[in-house]
Amino acid sequence: MSEQTNGPAGPTLGELQQRLTDFAAARDWQPFHTPKNLAAALSVEAGELLEIFQWLTPEQATAVMAEPDRAHRVRDEVADVLAYLLQFCTAVGVDPLTALAAKIERNEVRFPVADRGLTEDGNETG
Amino acid sequence: MSEQTNGPAGPTLGELQQRLTDFAAARDWQPFHTPKNLAAALSVEAGELLEIFQWLTPEQATAVMAEPDRAHRVRDEVADVLAYLLQFCTAVGVDPLTALAAKIERNEVRFPVADRGLTEDGNETG
Amino acid sequence: MSEQTNGPAGPTLGELQQRLTDFAAARDWQPFHTPKNLAAALSVEAGELLEIFQWLTPEQATAVMAEPDRAHRVRDEVADVLAYLLQFCTAVGVDPLTALAAKIERNEVRFPVADRGLTEDGNETG
Amino acid sequence: MSEQTNGPAGPTLGELQQRLTDFAAARDWQPFHTPKNLAAALSVEAGELLEIFQWLTPEQATAVMAEPDRAHRVRDEVADVLAYLLQFCTAVGVDPLTALAAKIERNEVRFPVADRGLTEDGNETG
Repeated sequence: MSEQTNGPAGPTLGELQQRLTDFAAARDWQPFHTPKNLAAALSVEAGELLEIFQWLTPEQATAVMAEPDRAHRVRDEVADVLAYLLQFCTAVGVDPLTALAAKIERNEVRFPVADRGLTEDGNETG
Repeated sequence: MSEQTNGPAGPTLGELQQRLTDFAAARDWQPFHTPKNLAAALSVEAGELLEIFQWLTPEQATAVMAEPDRAHRVRDEVADVLAYLLQFCTAVGVDPLTALAAKIERNEVRFPVADRGLTEDGNETG
Repeated sequence: MSEQTNGPAGPTLGELQQRLTDFAAARDWQPFHTPKNLAAALSVEAGELLEIFQWLTPEQATAVMAEPDRAHRVRDEVADVLAYLLQFCTAVGVDPLTALAAKIERNEVRFPVADRGLTEDGNETG
Repeated sequence: MSEQTNGPAGPTLGELQQRLTDFAAARDWQPFHTPKNLAAALSVEAGELLEIFQWLTPEQATAVMAEPDRAHRVRDEVADVLAYLLQFCTAVGVDPLTALAAKIERNEVRFPVADRGLTEDGNETG
């Protein structure tokens, strides 16, 4: 049973981005929320998400959500990564959805469907 | 002039998440898109975003979008981070918006507005 | 055939740390080499090392040095990580060998040999 | 007062690398110590070092060792980064000192002393 479909009553990305801005403003945290600090914090949180998986076998990693404590940590770190990404986007004035849509379009040109599989050096993207 | 407001015609997060799933499926990339690999890729891309800022002064970092090449790199890395975060969420069955909304609610309890400023050790979150 | 044993003619860690200091000084890079910037750069380079492995299967990862281009990238990123770690240590006045020896001693107490295997949550260290 | 000079009685890098190998072997941790896992762990620990600095001003970051708790965390994370780097090097058969010496030599050619300052895009290295 997946949580993938966010029902019509759920918040949008833009609404959560605004809530994060209000949250930081109410606590006078804006001086700390420079683009450089937020990029560092985003990287730190992505590391904390990776930490959950670092010693797991592929099988254990695939079943990560079956273990309630780990599942909670995964959701918590996903939230932290997204929170800092949105706050970073606010700080630099970038719309994340527009940036991602543009990137997908570039990648559709760069990786035509005929070229199946990865490049020789094992990377999808440069 | 900011790109913050994503107009009504823009894609939603859920639509982009689905496009990424279709994109990977069309290229047979799903075997590589394990939770562990995607968490690693997310961390790598967050590092690439941080790389743009690593030697910049706070002033240069704040003006990062005024320089077209850097601005393009910033948008590109934001897109990569968001893409891997969404693909990770698909792989583990977590809804990122629900996870973030829940985290904001926990943080509203954890950091009441009266407690202005950061904790003594300089961290907002644990 | 391994490179593990660094012969008597090889440089010591302390000698390389001094060469890095001289290298940066000769190029007027010290103003950029703040503890915060160097910690960010170290994290970025660790991400670049991880990037080499992110899509590899365990088998491919184990054989990473058999492919000359990848082997060169691995050596290059190992060097970058160590370089920034040493420059960070210089900036904050920490001796990395003393710090590591102390940590190993703490870990010998923390993980007695009788307790074989990892802790339940898959982490060796906290 | 710095800890920079590691006296003649201190352990060498090679000795600590061997102690780490013995430590892991005595606890049956080798199956977890694949190159890919160790590269992930190295990146995670580098993120933990960066976390100490993420919200600090440049002035606070420079004075990080004046605060005993933070100073302990810095030494601890330096040790973790170095430990995983050495274990990674053992796993792939790379000598870290040889790799760094070779990189410094390449950089001496790449960044002649006449070219003072950073490149236009703010990066020292590619």
